[in-house]
Amino acid sequence: MTRTFDIAVIGATGSVGEALVQLLEEREFPVANLHVIASGESAGSSVPYKGKNLRVKDLETFDFSSVRLAFFAAGSKVTQKYALQAGAAGCAVIDLASGLPVAQAPRVVPEANAQVLAAVASPYVLTSPSAPAVALATVLAALPEQIKIRRLTVTACLAVSSRGREGIAELARQTAELLNGRSLEPRLFDRQMAFNVLAQVEQTDSEGHSRLERQIAAEIQELLVIPTVHVSVTCIQVPVFFGDSLSVSLQAESSIDIKQVYAALDSATAVELVELDDYPTVVGDAVGQDVVYVGRVRAGLDDPAELNLWIASDNVRKGAALNAVQLAELLIKHYL
Amino acid sequence: MTRTFDIAVIGATGSVGEALVQLLEEREFPVANLHVIASGESAGSSVPYKGKNLRVKDLETFDFSSVRLAFFAAGSKVTQKYALQAGAAGCAVIDLASGLPVAQAPRVVPEANAQVLAAVASPYVLTSPSAPAVALATVLAALPEQIKIRRLTVTACLAVSSRGREGIAELARQTAELLNGRSLEPRLFDRQMAFNVLAQVEQTDSEGHSRLERQIAAEIQELLVIPTVHVSVTCIQVPVFFGDSLSVSLQAESSIDIKQVYAALDSATAVELVELDDYPTVVGDAVGQDVVYVGRVRAGLDDPAELNLWIASDNVRKGAALNAVQLAELLIKHYL
Repeated sequence: MTRTFDIAVIGATGSVGEALVQLLEEREFPVANLHVIASGESAGSSVPYKGKNLRVKDLETFDFSSVRLAFFAAGSKVTQKYALQAGAAGCAVIDLASGLPVAQAPRVVPEANAQVLAAVASPYVLTSPSAPAVALATVLAALPEQIKIRRLTVTACLAVSSRGREGIAELARQTAELLNGRSLEPRLFDRQMAFNVLAQVEQTDSEGHSRLERQIAAEIQELLVIPTVHVSVTCIQVPVFFGDSLSVSLQAESSIDIKQVYAALDSATAVELVELDDYPTVVGDAVGQDVVYVGRVRAGLDDPAELNLWIASDNVRKGAALNAVQLAELLIKHYL
Repeated sequence: MTRTFDIAVIGATGSVGEALVQLLEEREFPVANLHVIASGESAGSSVPYKGKNLRVKDLETFDFSSVRLAFFAAGSKVTQKYALQAGAAGCAVIDLASGLPVAQAPRVVPEANAQVLAAVASPYVLTSPSAPAVALATVLAALPEQIKIRRLTVTACLAVSSRGREGIAELARQTAELLNGRSLEPRLFDRQMAFNVLAQVEQTDSEGHSRLERQIAAEIQELLVIPTVHVSVTCIQVPVFFGDSLSVSLQAESSIDIKQVYAALDSATAVELVELDDYPTVVGDAVGQDVVYVGRVRAGLDDPAELNLWIASDNVRKGAALNAVQLAELLIKHYL
């Protein structure tokens, strides 16, 4: 008989939390009791799971000693406030909001650095990195070993769902207002998001980088275990509901064999390679999928040691919920 | 008394042609007679100019010896077919469609390489480069001289107006269809453009680069007069009506003084610098403007010889029509 586990999903009413609950069902995760948890205002609503409607419980009064593993998908402040309490109660934690210090909660993408799991110890606290980093690490880890990356330049075009349900509602509302000739009133975003591209996602610091740009650079260095690689990241917000698109240019130490790159990406399980006469996009390809799409694979125009790629990935599913569930699967297999 | 010139605008019913006619009026270009020309199907319609409606003439039967200067804004095939004929008739040519060999028609952006004009000779044939190259060259030429660029990595997010009026109509139609829950039928674009990002603009060649990507790289090398700089360009199509946005990362030969960059960009006439607590976008900033907006000016996360920029520019006006009119202004000042 398969062992089963009592599980909690914190932030179960958000878009990532909802995808997480759905993936636990789809992947037949060995759940005994599933507790769907949210902060005060959402408590009392319900979340569908295996044909039932699970009542959402209030985070404030939840007893973490009643579960073996908790997913934290409710923002970094919630993780910071409750994850230690969960760990002290003997509950393993997977944080999707990067709320914990890296030394306490290593970042893991199974396709890139699953070896890190060999060194984790009780209470088993892991971080599922940001969605762009999950997509990028999945593809870069699938490249031929011969490619030694020296520098990575990434422009990440983020969907409005990176801002949760509010981002989705805001783009829909703004678009309808503009098409109906009504005047536009931005609320969540600081200006018009419909039919526009915003040059940054949230605030930047005194040096001009956003928190997410710094985070993605650090995540990639940790996930690929090459702390010396130069990473340049620009995160922009595009008028797309779901799915992140990444324009990637990398410089390697020596000439790259493009045929070898094709063969390696083609054989990677978590990657779907789209060949040259076609290209992947988020709508129609990546959204709703468990794999990361990669296309426009090409050398530099004038530099054979340069490799250019286009990556399309479902930010909510593959970039967040699925990666977290995969981490949980590895934890229960080896430790719990 | 100011000398005046008989002028022809080929492709006057297109979005760039229309902007061109409007700029000739706005800038009080010394026009004697203005001939608005289009191919057969548009001939017979009219174009507004100085309170009149000018009748559109048929290109097929137009006599180029009746004008002193012709703007070609009707696609490269039209330029190829008629520009030599115009030159032979003693008419100066400004090509906005890159239909002519570079050796015959040097590419010029006044802010970057106006010095090239000193060497042009009768019949005075010039190319106004692609809109992304005009924007990029305008900003890069304004950087401090001390910065020696070694490598340039650009992701250019192109508005659908880069595909002319049809691109604009298609994005509007697709968006309305989706918001009204109707099924989507892509026509101009090969798939859903609304709420999506397309990884390439038009077809790519056997090495994976699009014609426009190769063109922009060559244009930048010519405009900045640094043929050895490595240029990596990715052109993507975003669901935006007007205005190109460029994410730019450059590597210089040595550390960059960011304060000096700020001062240089701030004092450049053709550039509007947006400082760190804000950022420019195409909607609300660049569209309708004669200047190129630049923001998110910052060094690399871990490399002081790296410079990152975000550029927003009106692709129809600044990137095409205005640059062409500025070239015409220089020609009439010095040669015609």
